[in-house]
Amino acid sequence: MSWYLQAATNIDESITEQALGHQLTLTKPPGSLGSLEEVAVKFSAFQNTLKPQLNNIHISVFAGDHGIAANGVSAFPQAVTTEMVKNFANGGAAISVLARQLHAQFEVVNLGTLFEVDQHEQIVDARIAPGTKDFSQEKAMSTEQLQEALLQGQKSANRAAKNNSQLFIGGEMGIGNTTSASALACARMNMAAIDMVGPGTGLAPEQLPFKAQMIEKALTLHTDQDPLLQLQNLGGFEIVGLVGAYISCAQQGIPVLVDGFISTAAALMAVAINESVRPWLLFSHESAEPGHQKMLQALQANALLNIGMRLGEGSGAAVVVSLMQSALALHNEMATFSQAGVSEA
Amino acid sequence: MSWYLQAATNIDESITEQALGHQLTLTKPPGSLGSLEEVAVKFSAFQNTLKPQLNNIHISVFAGDHGIAANGVSAFPQAVTTEMVKNFANGGAAISVLARQLHAQFEVVNLGTLFEVDQHEQIVDARIAPGTKDFSQEKAMSTEQLQEALLQGQKSANRAAKNNSQLFIGGEMGIGNTTSASALACARMNMAAIDMVGPGTGLAPEQLPFKAQMIEKALTLHTDQDPLLQLQNLGGFEIVGLVGAYISCAQQGIPVLVDGFISTAAALMAVAINESVRPWLLFSHESAEPGHQKMLQALQANALLNIGMRLGEGSGAAVVVSLMQSALALHNEMATFSQAGVSEA
Repeated sequence: MSWYLQAATNIDESITEQALGHQLTLTKPPGSLGSLEEVAVKFSAFQNTLKPQLNNIHISVFAGDHGIAANGVSAFPQAVTTEMVKNFANGGAAISVLARQLHAQFEVVNLGTLFEVDQHEQIVDARIAPGTKDFSQEKAMSTEQLQEALLQGQKSANRAAKNNSQLFIGGEMGIGNTTSASALACARMNMAAIDMVGPGTGLAPEQLPFKAQMIEKALTLHTDQDPLLQLQNLGGFEIVGLVGAYISCAQQGIPVLVDGFISTAAALMAVAINESVRPWLLFSHESAEPGHQKMLQALQANALLNIGMRLGEGSGAAVVVSLMQSALALHNEMATFSQAGVSEA
Repeated sequence: MSWYLQAATNIDESITEQALGHQLTLTKPPGSLGSLEEVAVKFSAFQNTLKPQLNNIHISVFAGDHGIAANGVSAFPQAVTTEMVKNFANGGAAISVLARQLHAQFEVVNLGTLFEVDQHEQIVDARIAPGTKDFSQEKAMSTEQLQEALLQGQKSANRAAKNNSQLFIGGEMGIGNTTSASALACARMNMAAIDMVGPGTGLAPEQLPFKAQMIEKALTLHTDQDPLLQLQNLGGFEIVGLVGAYISCAQQGIPVLVDGFISTAAALMAVAINESVRPWLLFSHESAEPGHQKMLQALQANALLNIGMRLGEGSGAAVVVSLMQSALALHNEMATFSQAGVSEA
């Protein structure tokens, strides 16, 4: 059996019951902390303890270029993928700033930028090819490339596990990757491209029909229903890296905080490949990219925030971590009614 | 002129333009950080600098009891107000936990619990009376009590200013205070009570018509349109304390992060008394209390989060601070396109 088909770590739901019970003893009206109570209960279950902790966060940003970008589906030139990899490593990108703020372990996994990048402490150089093929013309990648990208995702999860990470955030960078993610979502969810595409980095509204048309062309060309083949046909190296990382994290018992549109497409594929992964996925925010809500619905997922973010890189997930830390602090440190001598309802 | 009628600090909007311009130079698609960009721009204007900081946070929780509570409008007994004041000071309440997490200056201002509370380092003992009068029968408080509660709010803002606070959060505790806040909102917004009342700490749905009925009785009894008289007729000491604090903060150039339903009612009254206060108010979250959205609309306010919180105490505001700190870190630390050598759209 391939490694990515093996079952995720089982979650002991008896802890869920105990954590829910503990929440009811705390000095507040039941349920009055809203989603923060759910977060604390979930982390109790993930860590199999009533005193969950969230101090050690791992952030991997996967990067790769896309053959489809040559058709002009993005507002930015393709060189930006390579340039941003350098910016991540040099500390100037949004996710770099947020990773510092969280004292997170931070790495950039270069799975295939168009241009080479000099060696750097924070960059894992794992270039598979200088970008995928144009999936409107041919398969985005070979079987071997697919397997290699999945494996690089697993390696990233392994590094997170080695550092005893309590949360994994996967980011992504790849000019053209909302087109790839939209194509994957349409293939999985049997949707018309025009109902899924959005502006990505900032495509003008009048350019959206062309983006949808490129995807429809690809969906006509590639009709496989197997999620691994769909990834091979339509994916990007960085999206496949996320899929591998998500699956491996779930297998190793590391919860994943999914970012926005691209990351959720990867989550959709990960769950299609291996359904046991789903309980380990938390969804951080609802992206401004319009198709995101549709993918979240397909995953029966509620995102914690909706603050109009649409940057990617893992930035939306990183912003949510401090809310989760508040949720755990409240769960762990609030007095109970009996401890504080407060009357109940 | 009474102190609370004096104009708020003026905000130099030229900094707003510069901060918006700076956001456009950062290595991300324009607008892709959503509400976080707006937060950073607002703090630039508040602090009159392109490098705003948010490290020094002041949290005052105002407490007071309500005569109206004797009619059974709350799920909890009135003794809980006093008990929770002790819990705040002893570090066991939600806001105590969150204040510790933020390294905030934290104080409880007791403006009138039913029962006395022993002296405590974190409690300002400023009891005006053992609760307000039942406003369904008579004015909630005298003119002198109103002025004293406003003044105590000002004193709290003065303590925040003395500590160079960059943000003021006002919390509240008072069994029965969603009834008082609902009455104030109805009086201000000319709404029927049944369209404003909600469960508060956990009133059963079948008890809501009675809560609305008590408010309608009060609105028939007290017909003044002046916001100060409305506060005197229908308010609570802790709500008036918040009003005084919000106005004084705006006068001293300290931005206020408004919490939920009760705090927003106080914001509504503060703006009605002194319109110049409005630009200094930020709204943290949309409460699960159903009337909250209506008050936010009346204030033309967008809350940053909607995560189902409805605890009060300032807890919803406290949870949002870390998002604001992320917003400022991104604004201050991200590289520009030219610094990072990243191509533009």
